[in-house]
Amino acid sequence: MEEILRRFAQGEISIEEACKELKVESIRKLKDFARIDVNRLHRTGIPEIIFAEGKRSREVADLAVAHATARGFALISRAGEKDVEEVKKRVDEEKVDFEVDYNEVARTILVKKRGYNFEKRGKIGLIAAGTADIPVAEEARVVAEVCGCEVLTSYDVGIAGIHRLVAPLEELVNADVAAIIVVAGMEGALPSVVASLVDVPVIGVPASVGYGLGGEGRAALLSMLQSCSPGLAVVNIGNGVGAGAFAAKCVLHKNR
Amino acid sequence: MEEILRRFAQGEISIEEACKELKVESIRKLKDFARIDVNRLHRTGIPEIIFAEGKRSREVADLAVAHATARGFALISRAGEKDVEEVKKRVDEEKVDFEVDYNEVARTILVKKRGYNFEKRGKIGLIAAGTADIPVAEEARVVAEVCGCEVLTSYDVGIAGIHRLVAPLEELVNADVAAIIVVAGMEGALPSVVASLVDVPVIGVPASVGYGLGGEGRAALLSMLQSCSPGLAVVNIGNGVGAGAFAAKCVLHKNR
Amino acid sequence: MEEILRRFAQGEISIEEACKELKVESIRKLKDFARIDVNRLHRTGIPEIIFAEGKRSREVADLAVAHATARGFALISRAGEKDVEEVKKRVDEEKVDFEVDYNEVARTILVKKRGYNFEKRGKIGLIAAGTADIPVAEEARVVAEVCGCEVLTSYDVGIAGIHRLVAPLEELVNADVAAIIVVAGMEGALPSVVASLVDVPVIGVPASVGYGLGGEGRAALLSMLQSCSPGLAVVNIGNGVGAGAFAAKCVLHKNR
Amino acid sequence: MEEILRRFAQGEISIEEACKELKVESIRKLKDFARIDVNRLHRTGIPEIIFAEGKRSREVADLAVAHATARGFALISRAGEKDVEEVKKRVDEEKVDFEVDYNEVARTILVKKRGYNFEKRGKIGLIAAGTADIPVAEEARVVAEVCGCEVLTSYDVGIAGIHRLVAPLEELVNADVAAIIVVAGMEGALPSVVASLVDVPVIGVPASVGYGLGGEGRAALLSMLQSCSPGLAVVNIGNGVGAGAFAAKCVLHKNR
Amino acid sequence: MEEILRRFAQGEISIEEACKELKVESIRKLKDFARIDVNRLHRTGIPEIIFAEGKRSREVADLAVAHATARGFALISRAGEKDVEEVKKRVDEEKVDFEVDYNEVARTILVKKRGYNFEKRGKIGLIAAGTADIPVAEEARVVAEVCGCEVLTSYDVGIAGIHRLVAPLEELVNADVAAIIVVAGMEGALPSVVASLVDVPVIGVPASVGYGLGGEGRAALLSMLQSCSPGLAVVNIGNGVGAGAFAAKCVLHKNR
Amino acid sequence: MEEILRRFAQGEISIEEACKELKVESIRKLKDFARIDVNRLHRTGIPEIIFAEGKRSREVADLAVAHATARGFALISRAGEKDVEEVKKRVDEEKVDFEVDYNEVARTILVKKRGYNFEKRGKIGLIAAGTADIPVAEEARVVAEVCGCEVLTSYDVGIAGIHRLVAPLEELVNADVAAIIVVAGMEGALPSVVASLVDVPVIGVPASVGYGLGGEGRAALLSMLQSCSPGLAVVNIGNGVGAGAFAAKCVLHKNR
Amino acid sequence: MEEILRRFAQGEISIEEACKELKVESIRKLKDFARIDVNRLHRTGIPEIIFAEGKRSREVADLAVAHATARGFALISRAGEKDVEEVKKRVDEEKVDFEVDYNEVARTILVKKRGYNFEKRGKIGLIAAGTADIPVAEEARVVAEVCGCEVLTSYDVGIAGIHRLVAPLEELVNADVAAIIVVAGMEGALPSVVASLVDVPVIGVPASVGYGLGGEGRAALLSMLQSCSPGLAVVNIGNGVGAGAFAAKCVLHKNR
Amino acid sequence: MEEILRRFAQGEISIEEACKELKVESIRKLKDFARIDVNRLHRTGIPEIIFAEGKRSREVADLAVAHATARGFALISRAGEKDVEEVKKRVDEEKVDFEVDYNEVARTILVKKRGYNFEKRGKIGLIAAGTADIPVAEEARVVAEVCGCEVLTSYDVGIAGIHRLVAPLEELVNADVAAIIVVAGMEGALPSVVASLVDVPVIGVPASVGYGLGGEGRAALLSMLQSCSPGLAVVNIGNGVGAGAFAAKCVLHKNR
Repeated sequence: MEEILRRFAQGEISIEEACKELKVESIRKLKDFARIDVNRLHRTGIPEIIFAEGKRSREVADLAVAHATARGFALISRAGEKDVEEVKKRVDEEKVDFEVDYNEVARTILVKKRGYNFEKRGKIGLIAAGTADIPVAEEARVVAEVCGCEVLTSYDVGIAGIHRLVAPLEELVNADVAAIIVVAGMEGALPSVVASLVDVPVIGVPASVGYGLGGEGRAALLSMLQSCSPGLAVVNIGNGVGAGAFAAKCVLHKNR
Repeated sequence: MEEILRRFAQGEISIEEACKELKVESIRKLKDFARIDVNRLHRTGIPEIIFAEGKRSREVADLAVAHATARGFALISRAGEKDVEEVKKRVDEEKVDFEVDYNEVARTILVKKRGYNFEKRGKIGLIAAGTADIPVAEEARVVAEVCGCEVLTSYDVGIAGIHRLVAPLEELVNADVAAIIVVAGMEGALPSVVASLVDVPVIGVPASVGYGLGGEGRAALLSMLQSCSPGLAVVNIGNGVGAGAFAAKCVLHKNR
Repeated sequence: MEEILRRFAQGEISIEEACKELKVESIRKLKDFARIDVNRLHRTGIPEIIFAEGKRSREVADLAVAHATARGFALISRAGEKDVEEVKKRVDEEKVDFEVDYNEVARTILVKKRGYNFEKRGKIGLIAAGTADIPVAEEARVVAEVCGCEVLTSYDVGIAGIHRLVAPLEELVNADVAAIIVVAGMEGALPSVVASLVDVPVIGVPASVGYGLGGEGRAALLSMLQSCSPGLAVVNIGNGVGAGAFAAKCVLHKNR
Repeated sequence: MEEILRRFAQGEISIEEACKELKVESIRKLKDFARIDVNRLHRTGIPEIIFAEGKRSREVADLAVAHATARGFALISRAGEKDVEEVKKRVDEEKVDFEVDYNEVARTILVKKRGYNFEKRGKIGLIAAGTADIPVAEEARVVAEVCGCEVLTSYDVGIAGIHRLVAPLEELVNADVAAIIVVAGMEGALPSVVASLVDVPVIGVPASVGYGLGGEGRAALLSMLQSCSPGLAVVNIGNGVGAGAFAAKCVLHKNR
Repeated sequence: MEEILRRFAQGEISIEEACKELKVESIRKLKDFARIDVNRLHRTGIPEIIFAEGKRSREVADLAVAHATARGFALISRAGEKDVEEVKKRVDEEKVDFEVDYNEVARTILVKKRGYNFEKRGKIGLIAAGTADIPVAEEARVVAEVCGCEVLTSYDVGIAGIHRLVAPLEELVNADVAAIIVVAGMEGALPSVVASLVDVPVIGVPASVGYGLGGEGRAALLSMLQSCSPGLAVVNIGNGVGAGAFAAKCVLHKNR
Repeated sequence: MEEILRRFAQGEISIEEACKELKVESIRKLKDFARIDVNRLHRTGIPEIIFAEGKRSREVADLAVAHATARGFALISRAGEKDVEEVKKRVDEEKVDFEVDYNEVARTILVKKRGYNFEKRGKIGLIAAGTADIPVAEEARVVAEVCGCEVLTSYDVGIAGIHRLVAPLEELVNADVAAIIVVAGMEGALPSVVASLVDVPVIGVPASVGYGLGGEGRAALLSMLQSCSPGLAVVNIGNGVGAGAFAAKCVLHKNR
Repeated sequence: MEEILRRFAQGEISIEEACKELKVESIRKLKDFARIDVNRLHRTGIPEIIFAEGKRSREVADLAVAHATARGFALISRAGEKDVEEVKKRVDEEKVDFEVDYNEVARTILVKKRGYNFEKRGKIGLIAAGTADIPVAEEARVVAEVCGCEVLTSYDVGIAGIHRLVAPLEELVNADVAAIIVVAGMEGALPSVVASLVDVPVIGVPASVGYGLGGEGRAALLSMLQSCSPGLAVVNIGNGVGAGAFAAKCVLHKNR
Repeated sequence: MEEILRRFAQGEISIEEACKELKVESIRKLKDFARIDVNRLHRTGIPEIIFAEGKRSREVADLAVAHATARGFALISRAGEKDVEEVKKRVDEEKVDFEVDYNEVARTILVKKRGYNFEKRGKIGLIAAGTADIPVAEEARVVAEVCGCEVLTSYDVGIAGIHRLVAPLEELVNADVAAIIVVAGMEGALPSVVASLVDVPVIGVPASVGYGLGGEGRAALLSMLQSCSPGLAVVNIGNGVGAGAFAAKCVLHKNR
């Protein structure tokens, strides 16, 4: 702004021109204001993630290449085989030097410039109660890693054998993790148990496991919402992305 | 039947009389058949329990006196102060020598002939997770006792402190209880935990505790239905009567 | 422990060694404590059952061979054709002498060492209301048998013809079963009727039969939860495994 | 119409007048058409019933007096003490010779001209499963009687003692009732049982009895909707008015 | 019984034989009692209908041939192409002279002896609101016809054009139908409208049409349950069989 | 901005001062931007309405006086007797010349400067199906009037007598109303019927009337959402305020 | 009518003939009355739209050709590939000069006479929150256009970036649209935000996007129903047709 | 342990005594293991909070005095007037020097030793959308403060005026809060908006505000679960305690 005024003072620009330039700058500022959250999002290290479900593979591939070109990598969730093929095809067509990594369990596709590395800002813990909960856990892991977390996982733990919980929990606490994500289906009791044992924020993720009344993760979600253990918060059924992002925010803050 | 035929053969009764007597006996049998469950109920030791809610105190008192006169005692569930007063008034009016015992916590009234004693056929365990679950637990206890169970209770146990569970469970297992009733509200995880630790049938009773989504015992019920622990069956929210009666049936069978 | 002390007293081991050995033993005890429920589970005769749904056939086959090797048999529930093929293939590859028995109706696979026999500890009854309830009933039967029960089944009984219920019930009562499992879909009234007629614990299992409001077993489950008949407890919709395991626990206790 | 044309032909009215009169008649017909259902309602014998809940007692009393004046009687449902007082007060003020009959159990008020009698067109049966179902049953009875039905009631019948059902059912069938209303709360199995035993249309009415999941009549309603017994239709929870009116329509048709 | 006594009196049979024969007769009576509802069902003209869904085609075909052999015809509901093929194959194999009639819209299969005719006992009306409701309506029609009803259908009526309702309703009323079945999906208002216009019992059948909140017939069912029009009762969503059977019972009674 | 530049050009202010003044103006603009919706709300004529439920009477009175002072009037919804008293007391204390008008049926309080008049921008129609729907309708009326609508009401219309609908609808259409609000409880069919008859936007408001399944307005809301009639949109159960405000927006736009 | 009277007066027709002709005319009027809503529908410009789901392609094609022949065009919603093929085949067979336009995203088929143009009566706005909401938005657009609206769309707006909303909203307000349709899934907050910013009626359409609890558009619908923003009304989940028709009615009225 | 061995080696204790002492120590260790979470809870600074609802005031007072005596303070949530009186009475009786502070809005009672101070470990933010959300927010605040948080509150923010959100958010971000709690009822959009603007973990708390479908906080909870904004986790409706405790855990970790 000073620059404009200076040029105006020196007669380089007329009052009309000065006025106009100032207005333009003002508009630019307004636009900046509008974009403030975009910048903020960038700064937080939680990038926009492409949700593939309900989108056409073509569209997914377009977005993936655009994202990866702009900021070094793109992450796609809820992706299928067709999406991977389309993304690979597009990467070939565009002749960009991108690595395409499909996590079949998590159903995520990570597209990144060859050599791109995610910084490691801090650690989180990730516990899954049963085999069927692993897809959700893996989705959370991939998201958290992309957001700069080192993720310590323990997937062989279950309420039926609470004792199997002791060792991994001690490991996580000793590693000073900033948060622990606990994925559980069926009756969803594990996050409550974990939250009652550690002094770390615990994020419960109900997995869509179970049948009959309360099936598809509903009983698990309700249990977590009703939990007696303080220090437990939840995300929606199967929302690995949300859990990973939340845990990453905890890491960010721990280190500020 | 032979007797009738014999009397007919000996000319004591005519063919018409024989025919009629045989028909009457046949009808009596049909009626017996119809009453089979009444007798059975009596034999099982699970008496009809008077559900006071939705009935007028006057009506409750009538039934109570009738039951107690007929079989020595009457048990009323979901009773209020007004019911107790009415029952006492009726007992006074009828000049019967009945004891009236109001359990304020369980909201039960036990009316019994002075000196009447319930036999002790076997033991059951009864565990409550929190203070607010005690009314339901007490209802179950009273019903089970009336049905001939000795009830070993442990009301200071909760999921938040699983360790507090070890001692009472060992006691119950050592006492060789025929079944364990576990009352729990909120997330209702306790019955699952108990069922995973003992080789005794466990009956989960959700208590109408908790608020928000899944409140009023709904999350607890769903958790128990979704339980991973084998050997857990449930009754409806707050159904202490049903749990007590079920446990009593387990006792009956253990001893047959 | 005494042994260690003795060796220490006799100078066989130094104080450091004694101390270390005692610590190791202490840790071993802690681990034993942690494993207590595993042993217990084993002792109760209710083995871990492999839930195939949501697992890959490869994984299912791995677990099956491991279980069968360790304890003589493995039971898989909610299994499909692919799982059977994979299990058979694995058994062939491993060159183990296992029988693989696929119950197409129950969708269970039983893998056991040739000649392995399940002991018979006692009897339970199993009643199904309609043709469509048989898969759930069969699942319960297989589980109960594996847990040591002799199962008396009656699959041709329905609420529409209550009279058809009399004969099988009498048979069950006479056989002195420790519990009766009753599977019913639609309005789910049968378990209530059975519980009102016998002095045996009755376990209601809603079957996922029915359409429209209350369909998929919901009306059946709610009916059972609301039942007026004392001595009825329920497991979740379609939970044949849970019902079989619960009944087995009743058998165990009857015989202790 | 002919009359108008005749008068026009005879010069008694001008073409304009004829035209106008014909239009007026046409409009009158249109209005008659619009009112056709009112007449029909009257003809069917199912009068408008005043629903007191949510109305002020004053308003209720106004409507009651108006109805009773117009057609000899008025029926008010869901009425309270205040409504009765207000109706009586109004009847006194208006100095009309009306009888006011408050059915405390059914919560209905019947206002009728002294000496007014309801015709008896045919019979229906009315069965209630438990004490707590009687208010709904009584509402249905009062409505059906006002609609010209003789109502044969049996209020001491319950699923817990199916045998108690045989005698009253035989009585109803012998009386050749046009329909049977069955009121039931809790698990609501009674209407199914009745419908499986008789060749009469059965109308199930869930009563708002029961607690926990499926409570307040929900399990009962779902059970009835899921019923395997053909020939059972239902009305909403506690809708004695609807059941009474439906049964009355069956009577009407039987006699046409 | 007299006969037995007579033979005993005449020495034709010994006292043991007489006793035994009398017992046998008594048992036969008990069995008759048990079978009373079967006979009743037969007498009511509402035959057992084979529900194909959840049964194997082979089983369906077995039942169909058995039914048709026993009483002249068999009706199968919720049948698919595979069921028809299997039934036809079985009929061919058994070399019985049965006609097999598949109603593709109603998804019913009618198997009957060639020349078998259903008697016509009376009329019912059947109205469907929209094209998508016709499958349910057709199921109701087939069932009602098998039960002896002449069915007057009107399938081109909808709430959007209430005027289209007038003519068919008048026709039904003039034909003196014993009941009117009204099938409607979406907001389900048509049965209420019909019930407010006629003095005939109206049976509402919600069709599983509609999407979003209240979809799949739920809004329709709730609307019908909440209906202000007296004289409307409902069956579950898509329950054409139940509606047809109920209407048939109305016909039966009208003609008794 | 030009002014600042001019003053800078004329040496009245230094470059620092100019720069600062320009920044301040820029910030002022940003703030204006933030306030844009407040102004807009004011311009649309839909004022903020004070929701009394869950607020203390004292608080309500404070807000009412503040609003009325600032813009001439205040409207309070869901108000009780205590709120009216408190508002009157406050008005007396503050010695402001305000009229306080309590609509007991709508449960609204209108506080306005004596002589304040709402402009009449256009007309809307308002139809209620039954007596119990009038409170909701009145709330909508009061809100719409405050927003500048002339409201033509018709409260004696119901689905049970569709013919009664014709006249009021014609009146509304002839009055050229911008929208019609239709309040209905129970099965909620009226808005669908109205929307199928007129070419005016129809806003359905479910009233919390009805009992049993679908009661408290739920069936009505679902019916309206499932409506076959195009041109019907809904607000939540009992949301008279929302309906009135929406209709007012329609009026505003018609007249622009 | 006058004409008939005249001919009667002049002796051209007898009194019987006059009488009959007048009756016929009267009936014709009655029929006209019955058809009044059809005409009205036509006049409103909101044509009947063919809902393809649940109809056979053959049937859809029949209706499409009939509609297009009668009024120049036909619109089919929820159409699939098979429907398009069948419609095209039918158009070929019938040798009519119709254009068939399939909107793959909206799943609509527009069949119209070559050269037929829809008039433009006014403008509406249409906003979609995310990519997955576009199919619903497109359905609304097609319907609104057929009803005479010019539709200004903005599909790249989302709650995550509220700032992106400002520009399109200003454009819509400046274009003086009669209503704004806002489609949103997930948490469904966008319509509330829009309604709080503009003085135009806003129609919220929940899209069936989202998973877990509140998924498939349920959370979005509930949010919109609970909205604090006045001037927001909603249609059911995914109901693009209803939203388009409602907006069209707003346009019609603005211009009257 | 070494000590025991040493004493044994020096003959101070016999082998039996050594053995016994070692066993006792082993048991003590086991007990310590069991108590590990109690200590942990203590160490985390999240004390047990007394939930008054469903407990008798007497019981609440007992617990309060016990807690305060043991660790310096006691916190009671969901407390009523009667609880406060009882607590005060008890404090007087016990003659302990405790301050009793009742927060009428939060419905919490804080009992603490005179002079006891809570340490301040870090800051959290707390935002409430509307006046009716303040009770929940206050509960969260009190809990967080007891857990060592300094709480920056902003209670005058709402979705209707998003601009009012900017200033408080900037303040919170600048204060470097470890987490932000956002309480919101109705449509519950505010937490999503906040989470999309800041790089701090956001905890959404639905408030039990709102009516009709989705009322009592259900729509708010579902919205938060469906949120598009990453980094949002939720606790149950009205669970201020849970939110406060979770935020406190975030503070603890930030500072480790």
